[in-house]
Amino acid sequence: MRLKLPVTCLILEIILIILFGTLVQYNYETDASEWHNQTSSDYENDFYYRYASFQDVHVMIFIGFGFLMTFLQRYGFSSVGFNFLIAAFALQWATLMQGFFHGFHGGKIHVGVESMINADFCTGAVLISFGAVLGKTSPVQLLIMAMFEVTLFAVNEYVVLSVLGAKDAGGSMTIHTFGAYFGLMVTRVLYRPNLDKSKHRNSSVYHSDLFAMIGTLYLWMFWPSFNSAVTAHGDDQHRTAMNTYYSLAACTLSSYAMSAITAHDGKLDMVHIQNAALAGGVAVGTAGEMMLTPFGSMIVGFLAGTISVLGYKYLSPVLEDKLKIQDTCGINNLHGMPGILGAIVGAVTAATATMEIYGKGMEDVFPLVADGTFTASDQAIRQAISLAVTLGIALLGGLIVGFILKLPLFGAPPDTICFEDSIYWEVPGEEPSHEEQLTVVRTAETEKLNN
Amino acid sequence: MRLKLPVTCLILEIILIILFGTLVQYNYETDASEWHNQTSSDYENDFYYRYASFQDVHVMIFIGFGFLMTFLQRYGFSSVGFNFLIAAFALQWATLMQGFFHGFHGGKIHVGVESMINADFCTGAVLISFGAVLGKTSPVQLLIMAMFEVTLFAVNEYVVLSVLGAKDAGGSMTIHTFGAYFGLMVTRVLYRPNLDKSKHRNSSVYHSDLFAMIGTLYLWMFWPSFNSAVTAHGDDQHRTAMNTYYSLAACTLSSYAMSAITAHDGKLDMVHIQNAALAGGVAVGTAGEMMLTPFGSMIVGFLAGTISVLGYKYLSPVLEDKLKIQDTCGINNLHGMPGILGAIVGAVTAATATMEIYGKGMEDVFPLVADGTFTASDQAIRQAISLAVTLGIALLGGLIVGFILKLPLFGAPPDTICFEDSIYWEVPGEEPSHEEQLTVVRTAETEKLNN
Amino acid sequence: MRLKLPVTCLILEIILIILFGTLVQYNYETDASEWHNQTSSDYENDFYYRYASFQDVHVMIFIGFGFLMTFLQRYGFSSVGFNFLIAAFALQWATLMQGFFHGFHGGKIHVGVESMINADFCTGAVLISFGAVLGKTSPVQLLIMAMFEVTLFAVNEYVVLSVLGAKDAGGSMTIHTFGAYFGLMVTRVLYRPNLDKSKHRNSSVYHSDLFAMIGTLYLWMFWPSFNSAVTAHGDDQHRTAMNTYYSLAACTLSSYAMSAITAHDGKLDMVHIQNAALAGGVAVGTAGEMMLTPFGSMIVGFLAGTISVLGYKYLSPVLEDKLKIQDTCGINNLHGMPGILGAIVGAVTAATATMEIYGKGMEDVFPLVADGTFTASDQAIRQAISLAVTLGIALLGGLIVGFILKLPLFGAPPDTICFEDSIYWEVPGEEPSHEEQLTVVRTAETEKLNN
Repeated sequence: MRLKLPVTCLILEIILIILFGTLVQYNYETDASEWHNQTSSDYENDFYYRYASFQDVHVMIFIGFGFLMTFLQRYGFSSVGFNFLIAAFALQWATLMQGFFHGFHGGKIHVGVESMINADFCTGAVLISFGAVLGKTSPVQLLIMAMFEVTLFAVNEYVVLSVLGAKDAGGSMTIHTFGAYFGLMVTRVLYRPNLDKSKHRNSSVYHSDLFAMIGTLYLWMFWPSFNSAVTAHGDDQHRTAMNTYYSLAACTLSSYAMSAITAHDGKLDMVHIQNAALAGGVAVGTAGEMMLTPFGSMIVGFLAGTISVLGYKYLSPVLEDKLKIQDTCGINNLHGMPGILGAIVGAVTAATATMEIYGKGMEDVFPLVADGTFTASDQAIRQAISLAVTLGIALLGGLIVGFILKLPLFGAPPDTICFEDSIYWEVPGEEPSHEEQLTVVRTAETEKLNN
Repeated sequence: MRLKLPVTCLILEIILIILFGTLVQYNYETDASEWHNQTSSDYENDFYYRYASFQDVHVMIFIGFGFLMTFLQRYGFSSVGFNFLIAAFALQWATLMQGFFHGFHGGKIHVGVESMINADFCTGAVLISFGAVLGKTSPVQLLIMAMFEVTLFAVNEYVVLSVLGAKDAGGSMTIHTFGAYFGLMVTRVLYRPNLDKSKHRNSSVYHSDLFAMIGTLYLWMFWPSFNSAVTAHGDDQHRTAMNTYYSLAACTLSSYAMSAITAHDGKLDMVHIQNAALAGGVAVGTAGEMMLTPFGSMIVGFLAGTISVLGYKYLSPVLEDKLKIQDTCGINNLHGMPGILGAIVGAVTAATATMEIYGKGMEDVFPLVADGTFTASDQAIRQAISLAVTLGIALLGGLIVGFILKLPLFGAPPDTICFEDSIYWEVPGEEPSHEEQLTVVRTAETEKLNN
Repeated sequence: MRLKLPVTCLILEIILIILFGTLVQYNYETDASEWHNQTSSDYENDFYYRYASFQDVHVMIFIGFGFLMTFLQRYGFSSVGFNFLIAAFALQWATLMQGFFHGFHGGKIHVGVESMINADFCTGAVLISFGAVLGKTSPVQLLIMAMFEVTLFAVNEYVVLSVLGAKDAGGSMTIHTFGAYFGLMVTRVLYRPNLDKSKHRNSSVYHSDLFAMIGTLYLWMFWPSFNSAVTAHGDDQHRTAMNTYYSLAACTLSSYAMSAITAHDGKLDMVHIQNAALAGGVAVGTAGEMMLTPFGSMIVGFLAGTISVLGYKYLSPVLEDKLKIQDTCGINNLHGMPGILGAIVGAVTAATATMEIYGKGMEDVFPLVADGTFTASDQAIRQAISLAVTLGIALLGGLIVGFILKLPLFGAPPDTICFEDSIYWEVPGEEPSHEEQLTVVRTAETEKLNN
């Protein structure tokens, strides 16, 4: 056991380095010679259009997802630490996998800020799945899961965006629906009938809920950047960010309302606030770049928050009891159902696209409609098929990967010590004892008197 | 009681959605058809001038204000959670109210990144007022307060900026002075003679002070973006950010100095560091875009930090004892007095504006001086009148809204359980018990031995 | 003692204000008159190329360094609070010192966003040194150290960049190597043979390690902005950010691997994760802007993480026992050795520069090679000499400043109360007692029943 994690990390990283050495090149915007060979001004370098958004996305991946999962009382190191590890691995692997499918030029993968954003996006899907198995999987299992999931993500993304021609800039389908149903299937396969032996640790304490709110708020604040990070320059990025902003604001109010109304005593539940308030970002991941209008965005956000809280309250217990799906973070409620809602909203919004509404902007939003390949209805159908494809690949992939992760060689924790940092980390105590604090203060006072 | 919060949230959000559906439209920079109808390059879209600043402001509103208020030992969920709720509501309502007064085109409110920033700004004023009543008001009271305060904010902003022609890009007057004196008047009206029954909870613990420092530092770091977010493109944004940076740095040193010098034993007080060190940002909110110079900015920051600490130390107790103003966060010291200082500095700096100093840049900073409508002295007088108007509307508005909030139907907490999360939230325990931790570790060791 | 800190702060700030009044001016991009006198478009103002990077750097300085050091159980206020104080002082002083050496125009220092970034960079070096003496120095000592270190930093930077013509955009040499060896020499001179009297406080608790992870992650996420903040516009900024991104990702995997492999029981150590995972950013500080390729960046990051963990595990105890270097945060492992590695990588990468690889981009990366002043080998030699010069100035400077700090008038804490907040701060208790919590809840329930 002692060597499994380091050996896995070292082998994976060495493979990555070799493949990068063989396959990866600067694109023309990061290559000193090529950029200076052309006539664009420096301010037209894509860096200035997308880097600020990239950094926001980066914060969502490492702080947002990492701290959102620190709500568990004794799993903070693992939540933020394994999130860090698998994200650092996944973004490298994603660069290669996504490069194979849509960044290949003359046998080389060309990289720049857009590939960095896409790698972070793919990583996001892995971290969503992580939420379902949180506390019940070893870091080696997580790295193996990440390796397979990134690969399947790239396949699904290729089919949805390149083969089917669907639009999904913020990833309602490719990121959220995919990550959620993949993770739910994995956790189903890894079902633990005796998980209640660790039940007392599967809950929060006061401070861990505050740490989790750091994650929630960064996800919430930067979601407009997430959805707009890879949309077309100009009005598209601008509109997508704004639609997401309004969707999230409306979602927050419906989440608070539903949280209080479904509680027997009217008290708010931190689980809902930490999670459901984000569903509005998920649900405009597909349609955010379209002419959804602030009005439409707010309706979508309102519905997403409502569905999400209801899911946490009524559906999650049923999934666990009847379908044996132990979903630690409730990713079905935050990413799964809102992702499906987002896909449907995307299809409906695409169906209503007209030249009157989009003008020449149609080329950016629906290029295949603009050039006459599709009608708006065709586009809508492609969007709907993409949802089905995504669900299919996610569920099938999760099934297979779940069984791979069951192999005993990856070292899953026993049922009695799930949700517990101390099996993976050197863990210090909780607090200096009260007596020591008093001693300390008294010592300090005495010293001062002596001076 | 159980239904008041959800019903309020749902009604408000439904009204917002209906009004957005009726009144709100994309502006020409977010509309696919309109943006592509004109000849600007994509990099001229206002998104690229302002979106990074918007995100910084957004972090200040949700993380900055939210975590700054987590200093209370038992009110962290409410601080960060109600901050989240009322901000999400206020930014939607502000979009409408500000739109009525200065974004109306042919019966429609046009929205884009600048309206998003302005909505966040208006939200900031509400959150300042929240600081005065923190721990003593129910979330329903806060939503009602936000609704009225946003409306009055928009009226005052319209009078100051559009009618009087004053400049106030960072909102020393419109945001900080307004939010502070509105909040102080509300808390005066809501005076609780028996608040000392909750006194033991109106203080910090070690970790809550560290959480609060997250809020402080984000406010401090991003204040240059706040003050420059809506100034004119080019040198104006650049200069405003830099002036604010220097003002804050100087303010930090004077805050530390005054905190130690006013303590009986020379020890620093976290309350001063968390709050007074920010006063430098408030105090250059008006003059930051002017040719204040780094030198001038540092003097202003130095004074603001000094005044602020002295206010916390000597003025706040007097306000509470003599004027019955119970100001939980000391907003008079962080936003009130530094806001007034900022307004005065703005007026003085405007009075000294000459064509020699500003050149053609006068058109950006003082357009009404540049086109000959005003002299620099006229501008200064307008600035001074704006301060008086702001104080008048804030105090009168706070008075009326305070009485509205006193109506028993909004469910204020009793005097004995102020500053306490558990009446609004499902609150978990503080820490896993020491015994349980030991058990856990022992179990882990045993399991390992058995493997 | 009571007056030393405030008097020091006030004197320093007043001197700063006077010097700023005498010497500092807006540069042409922040001056209203000058900017409007020229024909550039607003989007060409350097603000839009660098301000987002500046803000990321700013977050690294105040949140990143500040929270990274909160890992100590009883020194969180001082870690984040003194970091705040000395950074606010150092950035002002650095503006002057760096201005003297390379921003002087007609007797005036011209300031804008680039000087702000450079001031923050210089501040970073001071905060690195702070890490070595953390817990063992008074704030007055720290301010005095900052004053001298900033001055020497500016001298060294001038010699390295301007006299020798070396390149070091991300500061592997000028920031990390300099800050580390300066700090190590200071802590050597301040050696405390009886420091084990405070040993029980020189460690973390569970929550303090989570706070420290906030610092770690912000440093990790924004390091691409740090290294690219002052490189040339266009491909250079773009490439530097990307190289850093890949270096850090590879570094994270090698850090986790080495942490687990060097532990007797295979458990991960938070100290390594918090620190070593960042070494990849340090080690591409010089070569990041060069055509290092993602492949090269990943190799460098991999090595940096490995070296850093090995340093924490095996070298730090030796340095403390044999060389009497008490390095609280292990800055030799995070900044020292990876900084030297970065300098070497920079020299090697420079040696291999050809016109074929760089094309016209050579003018940005190696202007003195492009114009024929140097060959690539000359450049490499200049890079190597710069490392030696940096080490020399840092060690000699640290020696002298260490002895200055030993003067009794700056009030160092006694050996028995190092790593302890309560001698500088009013410190509240750790947690509300369990009994009080129960009382509170019971009161709440009773009140509700009575309503």
